[in-house]
Amino acid sequence: MNYKMMGRFIGHILLVEAAFMAVPLAISLAQKERMAAIGFAASFGIIFVLALLLSVLCKGNKKGFRAREGLVCVGVSWIVMSLLGSLPFYISREIPLYLDALFETVSGFTTTGASILSEVEVLSKGTLYWRSFTHWLGGMGVLVFVLAVGAFGESSKGFTMHLLRAESPGPQVGKLVPKMKKTAEILYLIYMMLTIVNIIFLLLGGMPLFDSVCTAFGTAGTGGFGIKNDSIASYSPYIQNVCTVFMLLFGINFSCYYMLLLRQFYSVFKDEELRLYLGIVFGSIVLITLNLRGFYDTLEETVRHAAFQVASIVTTTGFATTDFDLWPSFSKAIILGLMVIGASAGSTGGGFKCARVLIVVRSLRRSLRRAISPQKVQVVRINNHMIDEKVLENTNAYLSAYVVILFVSFILVSIDKFSITTNITAVLSCFNNIGPGLEAVGPTCNFGDFSWLSKLVLIFDMLAGRLEIFPILILFSRSTWGRLKS
Amino acid sequence: MNYKMMGRFIGHILLVEAAFMAVPLAISLAQKERMAAIGFAASFGIIFVLALLLSVLCKGNKKGFRAREGLVCVGVSWIVMSLLGSLPFYISREIPLYLDALFETVSGFTTTGASILSEVEVLSKGTLYWRSFTHWLGGMGVLVFVLAVGAFGESSKGFTMHLLRAESPGPQVGKLVPKMKKTAEILYLIYMMLTIVNIIFLLLGGMPLFDSVCTAFGTAGTGGFGIKNDSIASYSPYIQNVCTVFMLLFGINFSCYYMLLLRQFYSVFKDEELRLYLGIVFGSIVLITLNLRGFYDTLEETVRHAAFQVASIVTTTGFATTDFDLWPSFSKAIILGLMVIGASAGSTGGGFKCARVLIVVRSLRRSLRRAISPQKVQVVRINNHMIDEKVLENTNAYLSAYVVILFVSFILVSIDKFSITTNITAVLSCFNNIGPGLEAVGPTCNFGDFSWLSKLVLIFDMLAGRLEIFPILILFSRSTWGRLKS
Repeated sequence: MNYKMMGRFIGHILLVEAAFMAVPLAISLAQKERMAAIGFAASFGIIFVLALLLSVLCKGNKKGFRAREGLVCVGVSWIVMSLLGSLPFYISREIPLYLDALFETVSGFTTTGASILSEVEVLSKGTLYWRSFTHWLGGMGVLVFVLAVGAFGESSKGFTMHLLRAESPGPQVGKLVPKMKKTAEILYLIYMMLTIVNIIFLLLGGMPLFDSVCTAFGTAGTGGFGIKNDSIASYSPYIQNVCTVFMLLFGINFSCYYMLLLRQFYSVFKDEELRLYLGIVFGSIVLITLNLRGFYDTLEETVRHAAFQVASIVTTTGFATTDFDLWPSFSKAIILGLMVIGASAGSTGGGFKCARVLIVVRSLRRSLRRAISPQKVQVVRINNHMIDEKVLENTNAYLSAYVVILFVSFILVSIDKFSITTNITAVLSCFNNIGPGLEAVGPTCNFGDFSWLSKLVLIFDMLAGRLEIFPILILFSRSTWGRLKS
Repeated sequence: MNYKMMGRFIGHILLVEAAFMAVPLAISLAQKERMAAIGFAASFGIIFVLALLLSVLCKGNKKGFRAREGLVCVGVSWIVMSLLGSLPFYISREIPLYLDALFETVSGFTTTGASILSEVEVLSKGTLYWRSFTHWLGGMGVLVFVLAVGAFGESSKGFTMHLLRAESPGPQVGKLVPKMKKTAEILYLIYMMLTIVNIIFLLLGGMPLFDSVCTAFGTAGTGGFGIKNDSIASYSPYIQNVCTVFMLLFGINFSCYYMLLLRQFYSVFKDEELRLYLGIVFGSIVLITLNLRGFYDTLEETVRHAAFQVASIVTTTGFATTDFDLWPSFSKAIILGLMVIGASAGSTGGGFKCARVLIVVRSLRRSLRRAISPQKVQVVRINNHMIDEKVLENTNAYLSAYVVILFVSFILVSIDKFSITTNITAVLSCFNNIGPGLEAVGPTCNFGDFSWLSKLVLIFDMLAGRLEIFPILILFSRSTWGRLKS
């Protein structure tokens, strides 16, 4: 294991994290929030010193960097980043229990949006900003950010490739351009532009600047932390519809936007994942609207709530404008289905991802065809490209890991005495980085009442879900640490 | 498609089915149950005539028989057998709705044990016998029976192999001996012996002969239809324990018994699937017993109920001695877990099967190892045998199909207004051929209140689960029927 390079890299990540704490610190100072300001200042100091120490201790080392080290690096960075990112909550006493602060931070960075707080409006502005900002940073990936700003240059190509591959969601990593640094830059540029446009649209609806920025962070990262106790419910229908549209936009594969910039409209139009994603969204809205007849006063209200909740769940954001736990069974079942499917690969959304659904269904169809005529050679195609057998194998491994982790987490969380539906949806919600579930973890409830064991399990699930399982799972494998020589 | 050979084969199946109806007909006559006797006599006549017609119409044809035709043959046979096997219930008016009669029959043949009846004690003896007997016939497989009695001889080797492979549960078909007919014979001999021993043990506990035979049929096929409204709850603790032991015995891979007969004790002792199966059973009993402290009066009662329910669910039998829907969350979560895992491959039990759990977990571990060191060649081993890549691929395809079918079924069943837990467990229970679920389909409830759509979906799930998906799924594939020449 190339510990020196890893240490140096984590040092860089921590520097970025410390730097980003300057904004909430400034907000807290401006708002005269004494405890919050102390929290951010102290955290800034601690993280900054640690970052410097790591940079000094891990100097010099030109050894190579392999796939395994990329995975480990990503897993460890996210854990360290979360452990330290939760300090402001804890030091300011706004979240008095460290485990709760950690839960909230992991939920933020992984863009889950599950909260242990029953009241968010009592939080200081600085803390609210930091809470929402973790979504934005976690959405596109903090390591991708470090690559984009060029901390490592193009000096170690294999290194950056392994990192990007480990942190980006989806079965295949879309290199937009041959150079990794350039790809990371383009991704972040699109991300920032979309966020700014989102803020402008919210401001046009009369939302205050602070609310707009925080809400846009939550939308862009498909996170879901709100700054109001009732999430987005008390905002105007216009604001709600803006959120619906932008949540859906952030759930689309970012390479589609890049293609749009390159004026490759036909490729975007023909993209099978995009079609599946939009088809699922549209179909779900129609079915839920039909199922909700008579539930709300007007058709406009029904469609608005249906569209908002579908967008929020399928993109794994987790905002809410209504308590869908009160909806009839069929609508709840669709919501549950959307929780599993999730957004597109290469977006900021979580879940199993539409691209994987396509691959799983097509490879299933192939197995069926093979059973029918074993002698024929059959390939799996998406967007007219043949999918490599390795990608198929990895997708299947991903499905297995997904099922096994869900299963074990569900059993462990059940030790707390909540209902089956609560437990299933709590695990699904955290693992797919959504936020709310049903019943005791429904949109109007929170995760505060779970035991410490359940919280640890759910923290693990959130991290495993965001990093697509392997970078976290690999940390628990003996072969990672021991027998192989670095 | 070799329709003639298929038709002839289905003719054979129907002859067997008709022949087996003679027993309940005799019982009904002896008990002077007029309507039931008419039902069995009429059904006997109809099935017999159809069987003769098929034999005559489909005479002569020496064309080959391929994998695809084996699969189709199995799927179609089971559907035809169920459609006709439900006639006695319907003609005797004991189940007035044909769809309900079909549900009950499919539930019987697939050894599910889910019932649409709220009262079973009002049924005639003949009908009760037939209901339980469908479990016994479906448990080891009716096609395997036809092979065993040698209707087709050894003339068409490929044919029998494809059939056995399609009807037998598990990822790899254990050929016990080179000749398929012989394998089928051995399996049925072991099956009959165990059933008889089971009956004897029940008789020793003072259970009446009729009850013993029916209960043994339900146990042997891991079916779960009881002949009392409260399943096994009102029988003595001795009887309950006998059932626990025999349910567990019928959930073991039958090749283990064959190895015992051959005195290969060490292979049985070392069998990894058997170890996993027994480990799961033992672990679950211990955990549930601990979780149920204070729920029953004595430790004996707690252990007895825990062991019975664990055995009943893991083997997918579905008998009950207590209402586990009232148990605390953790115990219910374990029950839910057992529902998915199921019994051993090559047993009469259903579910995903322990062997597949082993394969999935090991192939997942391999994927992880590959991510750590991509250059190393890694193989998956079970019982020190290297597992063929094709088996791995098929197991993964099976998992995909399993998840996709569960998912779609759950959404469809949710159109009825039952709770999420009811819908999830109803689908899990039918698809894994268990019987009871939780809440509105708990051990004290039944499936009678579902809509016709849900019943059709659940009938599909039961058949797909029993035949391990592909023989049923293949019937819906265009390539099966059209484009390929036979």
